[in-house]
Amino acid sequence: MTTDNESNIPDDGRDERHKARMERKKEVVDQKIASAQIERGVIVITTGNGKGKSSSGFGMVVRAMGHGMKTAVVQFIKGAIPSGEEQFLRRFPDECAFHVMGEGYTWETQDRSRDVAKAEAAWEVARGLLSDPSVALVLLDELNIALKLHYLDVDRVIADLRARPPMQHVVITGRGAPQALIDAADTVTDMTLVKHAFKAGVKAQRGVEM
Amino acid sequence: MTTDNESNIPDDGRDERHKARMERKKEVVDQKIASAQIERGVIVITTGNGKGKSSSGFGMVVRAMGHGMKTAVVQFIKGAIPSGEEQFLRRFPDECAFHVMGEGYTWETQDRSRDVAKAEAAWEVARGLLSDPSVALVLLDELNIALKLHYLDVDRVIADLRARPPMQHVVITGRGAPQALIDAADTVTDMTLVKHAFKAGVKAQRGVEM
Repeated sequence: MTTDNESNIPDDGRDERHKARMERKKEVVDQKIASAQIERGVIVITTGNGKGKSSSGFGMVVRAMGHGMKTAVVQFIKGAIPSGEEQFLRRFPDECAFHVMGEGYTWETQDRSRDVAKAEAAWEVARGLLSDPSVALVLLDELNIALKLHYLDVDRVIADLRARPPMQHVVITGRGAPQALIDAADTVTDMTLVKHAFKAGVKAQRGVEM
Repeated sequence: MTTDNESNIPDDGRDERHKARMERKKEVVDQKIASAQIERGVIVITTGNGKGKSSSGFGMVVRAMGHGMKTAVVQFIKGAIPSGEEQFLRRFPDECAFHVMGEGYTWETQDRSRDVAKAEAAWEVARGLLSDPSVALVLLDELNIALKLHYLDVDRVIADLRARPPMQHVVITGRGAPQALIDAADTVTDMTLVKHAFKAGVKAQRGVEM
């Protein structure tokens, strides 16, 4: 991929060409920015098998907190120990309402009826947040898993999302987002696994995975 | 995808089958966890064209902070306004050292020589953090872009990463991660764009994109 044109050796001609290319690029970018003027709450979904789904959700929570926006988190799956993000965000109860509602992974609970009841209870909490215009961003962490396992009805979830305050943002994470939810969302990323340390024998690391 | 087996209608037989499946799954998961016992710092890369690369890096920063780990951020591209994540993390100078080193997007600066000099200066700051064992997690935000544009030499960057303290985690974000860096990393996610609100005319939203 390296060409002379892209090398680090100073070259005034290359700098000139760079400037001309970047001027053209700026025109294109500026035009795209100018044509995106709608302001409203968005639904963001992060799904797929790769690392980064929940992390990116928590990154958006702190990004919103940095702008003085009120946030809320509902975790649909509860880990064995309090996660780093939970321990951190519980320090700011006025800025982030943190709800851990789930009951561990399905292969830990092994009890479908109880998992369904827990998911229903979690959705009731989510519904309360989705009807509160003072909450600017709601993170529904691992909701996709509850939908994928049919613990919750996707049509009901979408109806509640659509009925939320118009400026409220919602971030939904987890593997296996159903197509109907993807269709209803504004921004969707498939976090595609390229490789993972865990497969090379590295234990889940504090600060990275939990 | 919906089958009777997966519906929400109570059915004791289905619950029994669920329990048996989950018992088998738990065995597999437990065995995988038992065989991943290496403890060391990892290099995590988030790349690709989809949303969530930087957000997931910031999510890992707060996750680490939640465990009482010291963190640091070097941003290789400076936005037009202070980002939400910058405004938030600057509140915790003892927990997160925040360095904004870049000079805006290439099409804004239009000056390759200055961009290269800024990237070199940013790398010097990064090198300092990569030689400090008290920093448990370093986020090198948008470093991939500086590498893709050959503002920095990838072999030198990899050598400095390899020489870091053994328990230190490094998260590197940005489009176009070079293959050599992917080869050197432990966990890599390609954030694949499924759709983005911006393309539907929605302006970049505070708390979500900035």
